[in-house]
Amino acid sequence: MPLLVVGSVALDSVETPTEKRDDVLGGSAVFFSYAASFFTPVRLAAVVGDDWPEEHTRLLEARNIDTAGLQVVAGAKTFRWRGKYLDDMNQRETVDVQLNVLGRFEPELPESFRRCPFVYLANGPTGLQLKVLDQCPGATLTVADTMDLWIRTEPDGLREVLRRVDGLVLNESEARLMTGEKNLVRAGAMVLEMGPRFVVVKKGEHGAMFFSEHETYVLPAYPTPNVIDPTGAGDSFAGGMMGYLAEQGNFEPKTLKEAMAYGILVASFTVEDFSLGGLQKIGREDLQQRMEEYRRMLSF
Amino acid sequence: MPLLVVGSVALDSVETPTEKRDDVLGGSAVFFSYAASFFTPVRLAAVVGDDWPEEHTRLLEARNIDTAGLQVVAGAKTFRWRGKYLDDMNQRETVDVQLNVLGRFEPELPESFRRCPFVYLANGPTGLQLKVLDQCPGATLTVADTMDLWIRTEPDGLREVLRRVDGLVLNESEARLMTGEKNLVRAGAMVLEMGPRFVVVKKGEHGAMFFSEHETYVLPAYPTPNVIDPTGAGDSFAGGMMGYLAEQGNFEPKTLKEAMAYGILVASFTVEDFSLGGLQKIGREDLQQRMEEYRRMLSF
Repeated sequence: MPLLVVGSVALDSVETPTEKRDDVLGGSAVFFSYAASFFTPVRLAAVVGDDWPEEHTRLLEARNIDTAGLQVVAGAKTFRWRGKYLDDMNQRETVDVQLNVLGRFEPELPESFRRCPFVYLANGPTGLQLKVLDQCPGATLTVADTMDLWIRTEPDGLREVLRRVDGLVLNESEARLMTGEKNLVRAGAMVLEMGPRFVVVKKGEHGAMFFSEHETYVLPAYPTPNVIDPTGAGDSFAGGMMGYLAEQGNFEPKTLKEAMAYGILVASFTVEDFSLGGLQKIGREDLQQRMEEYRRMLSF
Repeated sequence: MPLLVVGSVALDSVETPTEKRDDVLGGSAVFFSYAASFFTPVRLAAVVGDDWPEEHTRLLEARNIDTAGLQVVAGAKTFRWRGKYLDDMNQRETVDVQLNVLGRFEPELPESFRRCPFVYLANGPTGLQLKVLDQCPGATLTVADTMDLWIRTEPDGLREVLRRVDGLVLNESEARLMTGEKNLVRAGAMVLEMGPRFVVVKKGEHGAMFFSEHETYVLPAYPTPNVIDPTGAGDSFAGGMMGYLAEQGNFEPKTLKEAMAYGILVASFTVEDFSLGGLQKIGREDLQQRMEEYRRMLSF
């Protein structure tokens, strides 16, 4: 089934302890879309400026990602993010953010986008997330991401989002910030009480936790020795997860756990190169192979 | 099969964000022994002063832990450690250490101890670890723990220990310190090259990684909402792991992975109370029940 994502498209500049890349393709909706495209057709709603290289659009379209919802704003610039990873690659500093066109993004979804049964709201202002939900009243499954900025500055909007979505994806520090609870098992359960039917807490190199009314579990990350650039890992985790759910057409507990595992594995390829490099090298069969290794790793 | 442990016995004073305990039973060999005693007879070699409460010895003996190797030094004091956990329970400060009798511990193992097929060298000076290895030339499986202090101050002794043991257990920061490599998958592989047949990297609330020539895997921690005091988690992980191996009488890959899982589960009970409180509440059947939940959590 088709999967809609609304989020950011960016030109990223990334510095790691050993390498540097400038103005590479990035943004939450880009990592998400590409990751999901291993599983299902994707519809991408985002905004760019007229500095946006047309080749990036073609790259996405070649993956069965519908870019009819990609607004190009004349006379304006694409969102830019510049970040730097510290020595152990688990911590990063945002060096510079230029919101540019992203600051006034008003998604007006094409009709076919509004009818998507699976909807993902990448990290963004809660007002924007709510407007997308308004436009997709018939969605089967809606999942949102958020970040510390909106937790701090838009608590009311976030509460409203949490009441309206089926699932929330956030990282561990955000779960702690949102609840004031340090123990992640408790924090996840507290977020669940705020409204969604399930909550996924991303733990970076340590995997991800899942919370629903009847289940709490944690799955480890796939242990890759080859971490080049963690940028986009969380968004491609979500893309792999949602892509698999949309492909399967349901979100039963069994499917959700498999989806978590696919998200973890897609993310493990993302971190093995800059930008989309890690994902561009692989096909679905590489995901299957790593899935077999991952299942073997977890059985005893 | 019987399992020998040589390590510290301590009186711990522990402060968490919400509670405090003074002079409770602690030390690496104590947590290890008690955890292992769910699976196999244990022989404990350690040293205490004449301030040592005799009831602690009786508590251990009631668990089929042979204390014939527990030296009591007259006119001297037992090792004392005082620590404080910070807000998220993942970081702790050592507030005070009084080595006392531990500073001149010279293990002279009884004959029955020397014939133990399974041997665990808890964290301690490398000279002491080597003396124990000298006394147990016929051991089937020898595993050592270490810490940042010995990595920094006794690199030659540690290299010798690594050449002589079958397995090494250490935590993630120690693996990084020992190798200068930040990526844990690489760091573990590098430690493996220093001599042991397998390496276990403990990641606290994130579980543990295993490295051997043919296998690398990670198992997550059991997600408990109830973390009261993490003291002894690493030692009881090792105790559960080694206890299970000794019970099974082999260390084939399949047994090692099950042993890792038992170590993780025993540790998950340890953190649910101060000192040995969490382990004293349970029996083998509680471990089995949590093992079933853990297996269910990891299968999809």
